[in-house]
Amino acid sequence: MNVQDTSVRPAVTSEEVRARLAALGRSLPEPWQLPNQIKIAPSLIRVLGSRVFVSGHVPIADDGTVAGPAGKVGSEVDLETAQQSAIRTLLGIFASLERELGDLGRISAWCRLHCMVNSADGFLEFPAVFNPASQLLLDAFGDEVGGHSRVAVGVAGLPWNMPVEIEAELELHD
Amino acid sequence: MNVQDTSVRPAVTSEEVRARLAALGRSLPEPWQLPNQIKIAPSLIRVLGSRVFVSGHVPIADDGTVAGPAGKVGSEVDLETAQQSAIRTLLGIFASLERELGDLGRISAWCRLHCMVNSADGFLEFPAVFNPASQLLLDAFGDEVGGHSRVAVGVAGLPWNMPVEIEAELELHD
Amino acid sequence: MNVQDTSVRPAVTSEEVRARLAALGRSLPEPWQLPNQIKIAPSLIRVLGSRVFVSGHVPIADDGTVAGPAGKVGSEVDLETAQQSAIRTLLGIFASLERELGDLGRISAWCRLHCMVNSADGFLEFPAVFNPASQLLLDAFGDEVGGHSRVAVGVAGLPWNMPVEIEAELELHD
Repeated sequence: MNVQDTSVRPAVTSEEVRARLAALGRSLPEPWQLPNQIKIAPSLIRVLGSRVFVSGHVPIADDGTVAGPAGKVGSEVDLETAQQSAIRTLLGIFASLERELGDLGRISAWCRLHCMVNSADGFLEFPAVFNPASQLLLDAFGDEVGGHSRVAVGVAGLPWNMPVEIEAELELHD
Repeated sequence: MNVQDTSVRPAVTSEEVRARLAALGRSLPEPWQLPNQIKIAPSLIRVLGSRVFVSGHVPIADDGTVAGPAGKVGSEVDLETAQQSAIRTLLGIFASLERELGDLGRISAWCRLHCMVNSADGFLEFPAVFNPASQLLLDAFGDEVGGHSRVAVGVAGLPWNMPVEIEAELELHD
Repeated sequence: MNVQDTSVRPAVTSEEVRARLAALGRSLPEPWQLPNQIKIAPSLIRVLGSRVFVSGHVPIADDGTVAGPAGKVGSEVDLETAQQSAIRTLLGIFASLERELGDLGRISAWCRLHCMVNSADGFLEFPAVFNPASQLLLDAFGDEVGGHSRVAVGVAGLPWNMPVEIEAELELHD
């Protein structure tokens, strides 16, 4: 039995997250900027009281554009490249959250990651694609705030033929 | 940084939603009626306090039955037809919610849409399939209540070979 | 209109769940034990206050290991076998929850099941795969606690080539 006292959940600020990422050779990209011709009705980040819903994100380059390579994992994209794409996706989510929330220290807990692989026939290493990203989430926010449930499966297709996509839900400090 | 004061979130009643839809040439179908031989254990709408979980819905015709055409988007069903199917799916969710809640004005906020396309090989326009439905949601409920996060991906198959399916989560006024 | 008074939601203890399952010829497996060489960062069960997020589970054998058969439903695995795999998946979730929560009586309500089939081309009976599992959930916890929304679709691939996977969300008594 695991007793979790949520009353003492720490605030991990943007400054701390950035420092921890830097120590791991990582950095936040510019927030995702959709091309001018693309107008979308949904919110990339939907905040409702203490709840945060993160729209599906794809890999983001340092300049805030969608980051290739595109293609199906297991044929056009190999496992290691897909793992890097998953990390870029997670870092893009961090950047979207910072833009929306002002500071990542408002996050009290990550709830859930919904992870999808654009998979070729016969590819099965869905958890392996996202394990480095999940570990980076723990490294950046600590086990208590960064802990999360996860589902990691293969889907038939993703926007722009990206290799991976991640949707998420989080909670904020009151 | 986006400050959202949820204390003033408006109630958009069924009467208002129906009037706004009528102005756009749309109307609510009869609520989804499963065929007599089909018994399902899950709830189409699960209400828990102020939280509402909407089971996956497929396109619904005016009479409350599943609305064709069936088929994979990108081969058997074209983009424009899939967009209309997505709108019918959303309107069917509205009808299920009204049946369960009594009045749509109980909804304080839409949280999340989980959108799935029954996609043919090579089809990639997943967001485009749902953009008109997402816009209709904003038109019907306003940006504040109707705002939502979204994930829109291609899956390997959907019940009755329907082209699209949408699952959702919402919140109610206390 | 369905008025749900959540103030009287019952507690269905582990003892009661186990007795109800036994009457149906079912029992809880040992909790899922990942092989020693597999390290995962996500939590199988993420508890945040009164909310519980359940990571994607696959079918679990009585000894807590992943239970075959593997393969795509509709070609390598038939409907009836897939239904049994879905039941084993749900029972494995029960076991993970009991290990994490101490007693299943802490659960006030099941919210949502996210059900995925590793489907062969042309297979469409996604709801049918999970109907016996959904019914078992109602039988074990009663309609009020065990009620749930559901999405049941076909995906392109699942870990270890398992035929089904289920992710879930629940709520706890305060």
